[in-house]
Amino acid sequence: MRRALALAASPGVPTGPNPRVGCVLLDGQGRTIAEGWHRGAGSPHAEVDALRQAGEAARGATAVVTLEPCNHTGRTGPCSRALMASGVRRVVFAQRDPNPVAAGGASVLRAAGIEVEGGLLEDEARVVNREWTFAMDRGRPFVTWKFATTLDGRSAAADGTSRWVSSRAARLDTHRLRALCDTMLVGTNTVAVDDPLLTVRDADDQPLATQPLRAVMGERELDPGRRVFDSSAPSVHLRTRDPHEALKELFELDRQHVFLEGGPTLAAAFWQAGLVDEVVTYLAPMLLGSGRAAVADLGIGTIAEADHLLVTDVTVLEPLEPGDDTNVRITMTPKEPH
Amino acid sequence: MRRALALAASPGVPTGPNPRVGCVLLDGQGRTIAEGWHRGAGSPHAEVDALRQAGEAARGATAVVTLEPCNHTGRTGPCSRALMASGVRRVVFAQRDPNPVAAGGASVLRAAGIEVEGGLLEDEARVVNREWTFAMDRGRPFVTWKFATTLDGRSAAADGTSRWVSSRAARLDTHRLRALCDTMLVGTNTVAVDDPLLTVRDADDQPLATQPLRAVMGERELDPGRRVFDSSAPSVHLRTRDPHEALKELFELDRQHVFLEGGPTLAAAFWQAGLVDEVVTYLAPMLLGSGRAAVADLGIGTIAEADHLLVTDVTVLEPLEPGDDTNVRITMTPKEPH
Ligand SMILES: NC(=O)c1ccc[n+]([C@@H]2O[C@H](COP(=O)([O-])OP(=O)(O)OC[C@H]3O[C@@H](n4cnc5c(N)ncnc54)[C@H](OP(=O)(O)O)[C@@H]3O)[C@@H](O)[C@H]2O)c1
Ligand SMILES: NC(=O)c1ccc[n+]([C@@H]2O[C@H](COP(=O)([O-])OP(=O)(O)OC[C@H]3O[C@@H](n4cnc5c(N)ncnc54)[C@H](OP(=O)(O)O)[C@@H]3O)[C@@H](O)[C@H]2O)c1
Repeated sequence: MRRALALAASPGVPTGPNPRVGCVLLDGQGRTIAEGWHRGAGSPHAEVDALRQAGEAARGATAVVTLEPCNHTGRTGPCSRALMASGVRRVVFAQRDPNPVAAGGASVLRAAGIEVEGGLLEDEARVVNREWTFAMDRGRPFVTWKFATTLDGRSAAADGTSRWVSSRAARLDTHRLRALCDTMLVGTNTVAVDDPLLTVRDADDQPLATQPLRAVMGERELDPGRRVFDSSAPSVHLRTRDPHEALKELFELDRQHVFLEGGPTLAAAFWQAGLVDEVVTYLAPMLLGSGRAAVADLGIGTIAEADHLLVTDVTVLEPLEPGDDTNVRITMTPKEPH
Repeated sequence: MRRALALAASPGVPTGPNPRVGCVLLDGQGRTIAEGWHRGAGSPHAEVDALRQAGEAARGATAVVTLEPCNHTGRTGPCSRALMASGVRRVVFAQRDPNPVAAGGASVLRAAGIEVEGGLLEDEARVVNREWTFAMDRGRPFVTWKFATTLDGRSAAADGTSRWVSSRAARLDTHRLRALCDTMLVGTNTVAVDDPLLTVRDADDQPLATQPLRAVMGERELDPGRRVFDSSAPSVHLRTRDPHEALKELFELDRQHVFLEGGPTLAAAFWQAGLVDEVVTYLAPMLLGSGRAAVADLGIGTIAEADHLLVTDVTVLEPLEPGDDTNVRITMTPKEPH
């Protein structure tokens, strides 16, 4: 199962609406016959990938899969049917499928006389697809709020200039995180003021092949000539101010992981609605003493009402070029559903 | 010399106006005869400490010392004279004495026919007495500015409450750093508003035996009944608003390391005068969204004028009790003399 989990987490797998799944086929002596993993929407599921390689050798084998085999007919047909057809004797899986459409694979296999065991290393398997699992469990995408700040909590100087607060290493790291999400989300005012492109680019500033959806949220009409609506990636304008409603719409668009990058007004609305699941802060060792606050008013009046976060990671980002700053990335989750 | 440096840095040596010094006496075969170190003002210097233990065995020996032997008569008499009297054949030292009053030990020893070699591992020796060396070189104390802040740059909530922004681990760590300084410095307004005690206490909230000087800076008259003027530690009121003048007065009081803890007005004045040599920030993973800024206005108008810092250490302070926050301590030095 550890090997299957490693296959599921194979590098280069584009995040898409599908979970990352790995599969190992073992013979009666526990020797590996074939390995497979899912490479993203449209490509075969992990089980099918492994079964194709094994061919006739799959007969009587044990299939070790990181996720309960699916039971619905998507672009690739249900995996439970492929497993039954292959003649495998036993299926061991880690995570139960939380997706109500796909679930039921285990019982279908059992009914067909296959020995089925579920739940092995389930917690680890859930982590491999943290956002997908979250979205299936909760019926809304997982939300990561990212903001950059100086040591003294500023995101721009008194005259509004902000290029650059973050170091080059932090800006590259932000693109790495964007690439792990399926949706970029900003408020209408950020689009009106900054006209950002909101695509994911590599170290040479070239756009990646797979781009997240670019979502803009707010009621005002926006100029369709804004860069966010160009052809470099799909976009959507969510004409609402209700964070719950926006996430519902995104979930219906098969979105599971939203990267909320601003502005402060929209981020505060999500925070106050309790709809932020992770916070990533890039801290620049810089003092401004005045200027725009990185975080907008949250309606907190006294210290006892402060929102506390659980620190899950602190990473020092060394400068990439001489003269650049060392930045500190702090990853957190809200301490209690607030 | 490495052993002598380790002796100099012996734990429990109270920081005082004197540098930390270690000394090892070696015989002709390079075997250790005796070891000594300085235990703080009033106790014997390292060389004298080692020579006393060696007695007659010091004759013909080599003395390895971390600092050029002193040549002035303080409370313990010049070490150069003690070395000459002991009959040592050779003296090897690391750091040249930057103290104009004490310097000249090497030439006095040479004149007496002793073989003298200086500068071995000098950089490392300077680090052992970083603040003392700085103060002797520059003629003013080294200044460490400490401030605590939330993730969004606040030091208190909108209603002024601030207990606690920092975790217990961060508060204890602050007392550890205070104990490494010889002077606590705050502005008159902090004394007027908060009436702090400004002593250094241990984990059981008991005051340490050795206390830094408590200095309050500002022109206004202060009520002598304020806690900072009680008998628990020495205090001084520096009746000036000029940071250069204040440091001059403190240097004349034999002070070498000032711990500047606030308030924001005084800290900003030192920062703008270019008189902050180190910044220690305790970052609490907490959002307030409003409230008092941790850092006051610094007269910076645009991002190009931002003050950048060099990060020298990032330490994660784990919670000491359940429910407490993880805090992050970031230590920095100003990037250029600003
Ligand atoms: N440094 C950075 O990383 C970064 C990132 C992003 C933005 N920024 C800066 O942030 C500034 C823009 O931020 P901002 O806070 O002014 O604007 P914003 O958060 O981008 O957009 C605010 C607008 O979003 C709409 N909106 C949607 N849902 C809302 C809700 N629940 N509550 C309130 N408004 C909602 C409203 O417009 P409607 O009237 O259309 O509903 C509102 O005016 C720009 O100056 C930009 O440079 C910086
Ligand atoms: N959270 C913390 O760690 C922490 C630490 C300390 C303070 N604080 C808070 O900070 C607040 C006090 O800070 P503050 O900024 O108001 O006061 P402050 O910095 O403690 O004192 C300001 C006063 O210092 C005098 N001063 C001396 N040199 C000066 C200079 N070069 N420029 C300007 N003033 C100079 C002035 O008073 P004169 O008229 O007497 O010259 C001035 O009013 C309190 O509310 C306290 O709770 C928090």
